[in-house]
Formats: sequence, structure tokens, C-alpha cells
Amino acid sequence: MLWLFLILPVMTVTSRSFNISDKSTSKAISDRLIELVTQGAFRGVTYYRLAALADTIGPRLCGNESLTQAVNWVRDVMVSEGLENVHVERVEIPHWIRGEERARLIQPRYAKLSMLGLGNSIGTGSNGIQAPVLVVRSFDELTARCAEAQNKVVVFNPQCDWEAQPIGCYDIVVAYRHNGASHAAKCGALASLSRSAASHSIDSPHTGRLSYDPAYSKIPAASLSVEHADMLERFQQRNQLIEIFLYMEAQTLPNVIGYNLVAEIKGSSLPNETVLVSGHLDSWDVGQGAMDDGGGAMISWTVLSLLHSLNIRAKRTIRCVLWSCEEFGGKKTFFIIDFQSLII
Amino acid sequence: MLWLFLILPVMTVTSRSFNISDKSTSKAISDRLIELVTQGAFRGVTYYRLAALADTIGPRLCGNESLTQAVNWVRDVMVSEGLENVHVERVEIPHWIRGEERARLIQPRYAKLSMLGLGNSIGTGSNGIQAPVLVVRSFDELTARCAEAQNKVVVFNPQCDWEAQPIGCYDIVVAYRHNGASHAAKCGALASLSRSAASHSIDSPHTGRLSYDPAYSKIPAASLSVEHADMLERFQQRNQLIEIFLYMEAQTLPNVIGYNLVAEIKGSSLPNETVLVSGHLDSWDVGQGAMDDGGGAMISWTVLSLLHSLNIRAKRTIRCVLWSCEEFGGKKTFFIIDFQSLII
Repeated sequence: MLWLFLILPVMTVTSRSFNISDKSTSKAISDRLIELVTQGAFRGVTYYRLAALADTIGPRLCGNESLTQAVNWVRDVMVSEGLENVHVERVEIPHWIRGEERARLIQPRYAKLSMLGLGNSIGTGSNGIQAPVLVVRSFDELTARCAEAQNKVVVFNPQCDWEAQPIGCYDIVVAYRHNGASHAAKCGALASLSRSAASHSIDSPHTGRLSYDPAYSKIPAASLSVEHADMLERFQQRNQLIEIFLYMEAQTLPNVIGYNLVAEIKGSSLPNETVLVSGHLDSWDVGQGAMDDGGGAMISWTVLSLLHSLNIRAKRTIRCVLWSCEEFGGKKTFFIIDFQSLII
Repeated sequence: MLWLFLILPVMTVTSRSFNISDKSTSKAISDRLIELVTQGAFRGVTYYRLAALADTIGPRLCGNESLTQAVNWVRDVMVSEGLENVHVERVEIPHWIRGEERARLIQPRYAKLSMLGLGNSIGTGSNGIQAPVLVVRSFDELTARCAEAQNKVVVFNPQCDWEAQPIGCYDIVVAYRHNGASHAAKCGALASLSRSAASHSIDSPHTGRLSYDPAYSKIPAASLSVEHADMLERFQQRNQLIEIFLYMEAQTLPNVIGYNLVAEIKGSSLPNETVLVSGHLDSWDVGQGAMDDGGGAMISWTVLSLLHSLNIRAKRTIRCVLWSCEEFGGKKTFFIIDFQSLII
């Protein structure tokens, strides 16, 4: 049924052929494109496709059936639209699953903590982990207090002025999410929690992936909301005893086969040179993947739909690739492409 | 142990007596007050008290033991500070409990919906409620589609331009939270969900209290996050079948006794005229009650601590009242005070 919602708006565009060999025609084409997207039949199409993807398929974590559903859905509509060379490329991708998870404050009072397990984390085992807490603001502070971390849950609460560094803070704070578990394990900690890499929060934890350093044992790791990380630090500043309980069923299953989806409009005179438009279809399991990166994927696809509906064929090949597994490190591993052929 | 964290900062203030009968002394007093609060011993005291309250006691829903803990804690510190006439006033207050609760999207796909049951709502019974959904934007639209609401879950998704009306929108949208259940019940609905009364959201539902119109049967009611209310409306716009499951253990227990906490600095020449400073100590059960209204309560208390530490006695009595149950309609019911004696 979803198919129907998506094909109709695009099919209403009148097909009309353009020759793009001279400048005045290029101007006519760009005017026509802008008109179609802002006023005409393509107005809202990208949003409409994105909303249908995010609503009806929802989150599309690598290795999950929903990601394959998304690939199949877009592929089928691409074929029905008449895009060229529509096909999938097989890639081997990780299959991590979250399972049930929770964190509870036990001392100085009982409370639910707002947490999300980090992608790639191991689980806690069926009994969970109950332990006192050590809060640190940095790796340096942890090094200085390494002996105190033994048999505790280490909470990383890095501070950054997001208003001053709206971009820079992300990498600074993500370092604790990404590498914190192994730093904590090095000091004998039982688990690692890290402040959300977020400029704003409504007690809403932000997750992402971690990496384990093979030199140290793997311990469970999760993110905590900004508010709860700060609360734990305030307890520590007041010398109040902090104890928490952490339960995570997370586990990594064997790799599975995923699919990068490709569609093209072949170039008229330089078909072996390629202009790439792309986004990734996969997303984290606890959102809808609209911003990251359903929007990028739907825009990339709709570029081809738009050109095709006007029967525009450029000199070079326009290739749309919807990648399969960015959220698990796909930038390096799963983006298999012949970059030599691309026009940058 | 909490007591200790709170008394220390205030006790460091040097006591010094002021006569406030002439203007130049008034200026000296206000300068001294401002200096103490912005630079001196009282700098950060209100925040420190608020953080300790919100962290260590946490949410303080009417009728819960944590509210009594908060009253006792503040009262004991007020007494130890030497504030005058510190006492509690008994008030009968409601005792609603949330219990476990959840909402799930069943069709067109399975998903957890972000919800919070509304205060005063009844529960769903142990089997929960599974039913199709009708989304409406207004009471007028529900009236027009009343027959369609029969045996469905009605979702109110009122729209308001919060940027244009940052204050006005709240009342417009809260009307659906407050009265939606009975409007839906009038049309034979099984349950009622309403879009969060929130200008911004990170899929974070905002709750509050509802009232039942005695003319109609009581049905369970909850708020939905802005994002999920909009998602349900988009499903309906696409003619996709929507089915949800709602489970709520909410129930109202017999009324209990709560306490308004009072402290004063008696007036020197007009002790029977009163200047009131007040806030409410109770809060909703799913936050910390820092903004609503721990901050107001701690400010009101610290006004007296500050004046007392400087040994300032005004002509009129300064009375601090920390109310017990605003969140369950206390503005009308539980704020028992002789307003005749107040200087407005």
C-alpha cells in the first residue's frame, strides 16, 4: 500500500525533453527545475517520500529486516519510475541488537535513569551490574583517579560550550562515547556511561557507536542524558554515595548481507564519468532516521526522479547510491565505489 | 545527610542588625542584600538548595511520601536557621498514582509510542485497549466526525503557532488535554490521546491533569509526543489503517493529608499585615519539579533566610508559604490563606 502513496505525485509531472548542449537551454532547464520543486508537481515530493519512509518503515538499523524493506521499497519505485540501471550491490554488514535495557539509580534514591546502550556494546549478563559510581570529566581525570574506578561504573561527564563550538563540541564529547569503555576497563571498571553528545536535551539520551580497544576487556557501555550525567556529578560533589543498576541485553550477532541501492541516468557523451548523489538509508533503532539520513537519501533519489521526469540527460552519468550501513562505520567499510570515475 | 549540604552555606553569613526606618538605611540594606546574593555568602544558595531537593528527593507528586520528605526537610532547616513561626498546615489532597503505562503502534507497523498518562485519568484495565484511531485537530472536527469516533481511540492533534503565541498556545492546546477525554467519551470513544502542550519536543511527552465531565463516562487519557501525534495524523492523511494498544494502571486512591509549610519574619510595627512569598513544593512524578515549582519554592524560602541572616525585620510580616498540591488543582482547593491580611 505504501507504494501507492509514493508513485502518484511524481507521475503527475509532464514529461518533456531537453537538449542541454547550449547555455540558454541550461538556463531554461534550471528555471523549469526550480519551478517544479518550489511551485509545481515536485513541490513536497521529497518530504512526502521521507515522511512515508520514516512513518511506515521507521528505524532501519544495519542488519535488521526494516533496512531491507526500505531498500526494496525505494528500488521498486525507482524501477516503476523508469530510472536506469537500478540494482543493489551486496555488502557484508554488522548485526548488533539492543534488546531490553535499563539503568536505575539505587542510591541516594531510587530513580529511572534516561539511558541508551551504545551500538556495538556488549550486554551486562542476565543479572545486570550493580555498583558504585565514579564521575569524571575527562580521560586525564580518569587517569589521575584510575585506582578509584576499580569495580565501579565510570561516568564520563565531559563539558563543552556548545554555543561557542556548535560543531567542534560534537567530536570532543563523542570521544568519550567512542573510546570511554576501554579507558574505563583499563582501570578495572565494570561498565561505562557517557554524557550524551548533545547540545540540547529534554532528558533525552543520544546514542551512537563505540569501539573497543582490543588491549582491554570489553565492558558494557551506554549514554546517559545530559541532565542525569550532571545529577550524578552533583551527588559526587556533595559526597553522597551513588549506586546504580545497569541491565543491557545488547549483543552482536554474525554479520549479514546488506544492500547498497544504485540508480542512474546515463550520461549522453561522457557516460563513464559520474556525478554521485547519495545518502544512507540505514539509521539508529531508537529514532526514525529522518534527519540521519533519510532526508539525504530521499533528496538524492528525488534528484534523479526530477531529471528523469523532464527527460533530461546530462553529458555525464548521474548516479544515486543509497548506502546500507553508515551508522556502523560504513564510511570506511561499506561504501564500495570506484571513486576514480567520479567528478568531484 | 542532605541536611548538612544545605545548612552550611547559609550559616557562613555574618549576622548584622539593621534598622529599616529611614531611607538611607533602606538603600544600605538593599545594597548589602544584592552584594550577598550576587557576590557574597548567599551566591548560589538558592540553586544549591534546589539542586539538592531535585536530586536527592526528586519528584514530589501530591499524596506521595516524597512530598512529605520535602516538607520535613525544608521545615527542619528553617527551624535550625531560626526562622519564626515555622509550622505546617494540614490540607486534604488527592492521591492519584500512575502505575505502569505504555502505548504501542500496532498498525501500520509496530512501534513504541512516546506517551504519558494524564493526571486524574482512570486506567485501562489489565487487558489494555486495542483499537483503531481517529485523529482530529479540534473539538469542532470531532463533533463533525462524532459517529466515526465510536469504539476508537480519539487522538487530538491541535495546531498552534507557538512562535507567534508563546503564552497563548499553552491554554489553547491544554484545553484538549484537560477536556478531551469527556468530549471523546461523548462520541463513544474508548480512550483519548492528546498532543503534548509543548512548544518544542525531542519526542518528549508533556503531561498534566485532566478533568472528567460527570455527564459522560470516564475513559483513559494520555498525552502523546508532538512527533507521534503528527505521525498518526500523517497515517490518516494517507488512508493507512492505524491501530494502537494502550495500557495504563492509573488509579485514584483515597485522599490523604498533605502539608503547606509556613515560616515568617514577624513585622516590627504592622505584624498583622503580611507580605507573602510562596511557591509550591509538589511536582509531577516524571520530572524533578525544578522549574515547576522547586525554583519558586527555594527562592521564597531563601528570601527569609537572607533577611534573617542579616537580622532584618521589616514593618510588616514576611510570610513564606510552600504549598502542598498545586499540580492537582491546588490553586483553588489547597491554597488556604487569609488574603485579607496580604499587602498586594
